[in-house]
Amino acid sequence: MLSLPKKISIIEVGPRDGLQNEKNFVPTETKLMFINKLTSAGIKEMELTSFVSPKWVPQMKDASEIVASHPNIFRNIVLAPNRKGIDRALELGCHSIAVFVGVSNSFNKKNINKSTMESLEELKPIIAELKKKDIFVRACISTAFYCPFDGKISESDTLHLCEEFVAAGVDELSVADTIGMATPSESFSLFSSLKERLPNVLLTAHFHDTRKMALANIFAALQAGIDRFDTSAGGLGGCPFAPGANGNVATEDVVYMLERMGIDTGINLDKLVEAIDTISPVLSRKINSGYYQLSKK
Amino acid sequence: MLSLPKKISIIEVGPRDGLQNEKNFVPTETKLMFINKLTSAGIKEMELTSFVSPKWVPQMKDASEIVASHPNIFRNIVLAPNRKGIDRALELGCHSIAVFVGVSNSFNKKNINKSTMESLEELKPIIAELKKKDIFVRACISTAFYCPFDGKISESDTLHLCEEFVAAGVDELSVADTIGMATPSESFSLFSSLKERLPNVLLTAHFHDTRKMALANIFAALQAGIDRFDTSAGGLGGCPFAPGANGNVATEDVVYMLERMGIDTGINLDKLVEAIDTISPVLSRKINSGYYQLSKK
Repeated sequence: MLSLPKKISIIEVGPRDGLQNEKNFVPTETKLMFINKLTSAGIKEMELTSFVSPKWVPQMKDASEIVASHPNIFRNIVLAPNRKGIDRALELGCHSIAVFVGVSNSFNKKNINKSTMESLEELKPIIAELKKKDIFVRACISTAFYCPFDGKISESDTLHLCEEFVAAGVDELSVADTIGMATPSESFSLFSSLKERLPNVLLTAHFHDTRKMALANIFAALQAGIDRFDTSAGGLGGCPFAPGANGNVATEDVVYMLERMGIDTGINLDKLVEAIDTISPVLSRKINSGYYQLSKK
Repeated sequence: MLSLPKKISIIEVGPRDGLQNEKNFVPTETKLMFINKLTSAGIKEMELTSFVSPKWVPQMKDASEIVASHPNIFRNIVLAPNRKGIDRALELGCHSIAVFVGVSNSFNKKNINKSTMESLEELKPIIAELKKKDIFVRACISTAFYCPFDGKISESDTLHLCEEFVAAGVDELSVADTIGMATPSESFSLFSSLKERLPNVLLTAHFHDTRKMALANIFAALQAGIDRFDTSAGGLGGCPFAPGANGNVATEDVVYMLERMGIDTGINLDKLVEAIDTISPVLSRKINSGYYQLSKK
């Protein structure tokens, strides 16, 4: 028989990763309604917003307001790509901060204008400082399988970078198949290795459904012992390098599959649909997750 | 490590299962172009058409013409729901005939106005007769996991019906998750049991992508030792009881995932896209498979 966990944790990334990739600016009020409804649906960990330059990412220009009204859940995470963002997050009293780096040099340079090693070296003392302040630190490891510029990323490069971040003191690694190219075999292989080598860090898998493999990859990761998944309500988000492609795996499709397999997610699907209903009318794209579509018939 | 097969067989069901569910009648000439292009892409087994009443299923009214121009591939399959259809298929010299039955009584009655047991008893002597004529017999076992009317189908009911058909002499069982509700756990469980109990029949898994679980279910079935999959180019088809929902799992998404995992399918993806291009303009729906969409960017 298959060995699967009894219970998993969902880290909802819709308000940050999802809306950051939306064409239109979503009104702050709508975002807050969305976040509150997600909380009512049972979401306990959430990426709320990102402290990035409003010049480059106008979608996140209301980060301070979002943080000020943050819901009362187990873990509100804010993304901060650099020193400046981290300082803003700290000033506003954030307790959980996500940093990010791409395993692929080319991708990292395109994103934050630094090599992967430069990012790592810059982040090491910052992570140490955050840990001294008892801040929960999540490291988002992007292009962990494939890079839109360099193609296949070697598993050993990803493992090495993950080990560096764990050595630097992070609490969680969110390991991402940024362009939705990983296969279930690759998911099983990488996550099995990570589980074995890094038993003392929270390991989270982050999949995109660009090629419809996201649920298969999650099923493979479960078999590798992973019990934390980044998902996005309505499947919001995506990769700017694959425009129009499906984005993050939809929270509702993941919750449906896992609950149906007897794995507890703590999330109420009806209330999750209500949360998506609040945001759906202002989006530039149609929600195309299986569960949401069927719920409207 | 995961144990996966090195090579699998695709049974293309687009021309029959796919087009039968299309709103518009697809011109015979277009169907034949589609079938020929699928053959060029490497398809070796295909459900070509169905000998059903043109009154009920006008989409298949050109069954005789389709059969007359059948491609030179390993196995051309025609579906025949009853004595009359089977006689027509035999007259036209068909070598492979598919019969079908639902595990669910309610579903079977709705489809062919007979109980499951009535269908089985009627088919037994027909299968014996076909085997005497050296005809390849495929049994399509629908609602093997869930029924749109009765809900969950017990695994033992499905196993029992499959055993009856094998005892009756069929060469292949195509075991279907007709409404796309099976989970990977259920896929693994049923196909493991079938493999164990019925080692001397061709076992084929047939999944629908209604809830985005089709590739996960295929990945689970692979782990159960299944190496034959029904798929539909462009994801054509679907279930009349879930209108607008995604249909059969798309051949191109399955081939992409399997080839990427090093499993030989014998199918050329570029040529498969060309085949879909021939049919796409006349369809009432948009092709929404991951691979096809990405191929157009």
